[in-house]
Amino acid sequence: MPAIARIEAGHYRIPLPEVLSDSTHGAIPAFELITCRVFDAEGAEGMGYTYTVGRNGGAIRHILAEEIAEIAAGADADLTEALWRRVWWALHYGGRGGPAVLAQSAFDIALWDLKAKRAGCALWRLLGGHDPRVPCYAGGIDLDLSVDALLRQTEGNLARGFRAIKMKVGRPRLAEDVEKLKAMRAHLGPGFPLMVDANMRWTADEAIRAARAFAPFDPYWLEEPVVPEDVAGHARVLREGGLPVASGENLRSLWEFQALIAAGGVSFPEPDVTNCGGVTSFMKVARLAEAFQLPVTSHGAHDITVQLLAACPNRSFLEAHGFGLERIIAEPLRMEEGCAIAPDRPGHGVAFDWDALAALRA
Amino acid sequence: MPAIARIEAGHYRIPLPEVLSDSTHGAIPAFELITCRVFDAEGAEGMGYTYTVGRNGGAIRHILAEEIAEIAAGADADLTEALWRRVWWALHYGGRGGPAVLAQSAFDIALWDLKAKRAGCALWRLLGGHDPRVPCYAGGIDLDLSVDALLRQTEGNLARGFRAIKMKVGRPRLAEDVEKLKAMRAHLGPGFPLMVDANMRWTADEAIRAARAFAPFDPYWLEEPVVPEDVAGHARVLREGGLPVASGENLRSLWEFQALIAAGGVSFPEPDVTNCGGVTSFMKVARLAEAFQLPVTSHGAHDITVQLLAACPNRSFLEAHGFGLERIIAEPLRMEEGCAIAPDRPGHGVAFDWDALAALRA
Repeated sequence: MPAIARIEAGHYRIPLPEVLSDSTHGAIPAFELITCRVFDAEGAEGMGYTYTVGRNGGAIRHILAEEIAEIAAGADADLTEALWRRVWWALHYGGRGGPAVLAQSAFDIALWDLKAKRAGCALWRLLGGHDPRVPCYAGGIDLDLSVDALLRQTEGNLARGFRAIKMKVGRPRLAEDVEKLKAMRAHLGPGFPLMVDANMRWTADEAIRAARAFAPFDPYWLEEPVVPEDVAGHARVLREGGLPVASGENLRSLWEFQALIAAGGVSFPEPDVTNCGGVTSFMKVARLAEAFQLPVTSHGAHDITVQLLAACPNRSFLEAHGFGLERIIAEPLRMEEGCAIAPDRPGHGVAFDWDALAALRA
Repeated sequence: MPAIARIEAGHYRIPLPEVLSDSTHGAIPAFELITCRVFDAEGAEGMGYTYTVGRNGGAIRHILAEEIAEIAAGADADLTEALWRRVWWALHYGGRGGPAVLAQSAFDIALWDLKAKRAGCALWRLLGGHDPRVPCYAGGIDLDLSVDALLRQTEGNLARGFRAIKMKVGRPRLAEDVEKLKAMRAHLGPGFPLMVDANMRWTADEAIRAARAFAPFDPYWLEEPVVPEDVAGHARVLREGGLPVASGENLRSLWEFQALIAAGGVSFPEPDVTNCGGVTSFMKVARLAEAFQLPVTSHGAHDITVQLLAACPNRSFLEAHGFGLERIIAEPLRMEEGCAIAPDRPGHGVAFDWDALAALRA
């Protein structure tokens, strides 16, 4: 039995190469990275992480170091289902979302990394191998870019091998969004997968109006048109707007996904393994999507998520998002002809350069 | 303009006079108290607090001290709506629930205390005075008590002036619950308001079976029959079980209440001002309940909540729950003939004995 001997939590601030922006979070100069290292009694290690766009990282580290470490001490690390329930309920009163579920996600990722490493097996094979080649899109955080700058960024993404691209929408005037989308479609040509992301900017009626204005330029999906709480609004946008809807980066449990999917509010469920409850919850969301005949996409943490989508027959695109992490990851993700390739190293295959990280401690 | 000059956060562990128990949280030897003191530029102070059944208090204190203090620095403390939105969105990515909303609740309570104090007005008058006398029930956390011990506790509650009582259910065997409920009903006589609380113990079908078994003993409501995520389950229990349903202590926003109420899943919405988003959110939930022709009850923090229910024409019972806090509150809540009386002191009227608290720092 691989008993949990020690849990180490770290909190870092990762400066971004350039300041990013979207319609909800404003300017984002840095991401917070919160790491969780789980060591078993035989010295084997699993690693997980989560991140934020700038706040609550200290609280997340605190929950990992002070609460989860105590809750999980001595437990059998292989019992990922039992530990998931134990942590969820131990933290429930002051948990059930927010920093608590981000912390739990990082811990769960570490447990799966440990399990797969001990099995000598890549995570995507352990979870049910489908195909290590996962189509991948470049997720731009580019709301404030001019049309020219957006097209320059796009050229860079095409040169890096991307064959699908997402852009931000939600400018103060809808006409600005339409102009940029029109320029992007003209630049990329018909049929090129081009997603648009509103980051919860609109009411349902505003989103429906936007979707109809975008439709002539054939977006692959419209992402997060309204706030995550507005399940009925999602369903209206999907039905009345005339575009597929992606959503889920701000849903924090399997049950929030179930409610949105069952209501017909989403075409592309989009869990983030670092905030939906970890690998355990991500895979349940992916299988739930399959049961509803829906493709599953992803948000953030592409280096870990490529392993999960490689285990899903219903996988859609993987979102690729560096967040500046590529500088501190030993072997950054390999891309070939628009696909990310899930590595065959044991575990999830992501290893941080802890020496480089030390200088970024928050 | 009352500019926010300083925010102080504290984290304390309040031992309970005796260990409590319910069907979900197990044995609870102590509560965590997390305080938020807001000082304006003129030296006026508002105070808020939140609490947990034992975990994540450190994370909550961290969010108050490191995030909210920075987000709110220099802001006009009277702009409670503007500040609510600002904090919600600043914390959204790693927030929208959990420790983040508990911290935000404490901060919002402090702002309302400050606003009312500056106005020289009791909070219940400021919010829309209805009636300072609020019917009140004793909330027992007594799942593990024998029938005899439960009846003895009940005698104590009657002697303290309570004219309504809640007991826990959710024992491993339903027959045990029924036996205790039957004994309580026989002891209290017909018509005495007697609530039962399952603390999310059951599936919807189990809850329906329990509700039907309880019905002959006329419980006033059945509380939290299923987990908060199970909106459809709540609606089934309410319709098929044949008892009114109370729920809400684990809902963390106005929007979670809206979803449950609109689905017909609750007869007595039960917000907790210290975890639903503060006074701002509690009052919106209470008014939403009124719009749906529903009474509103409460959970926890009765010393502050009496002020809020005293402003609501649709108020049902206030839950009275000491949590050991009465020993460190300057003027504990006054009760008369089964009613709690909202004090007429400016603000919410709750003042801690900070010297006594200092010894309990976590």
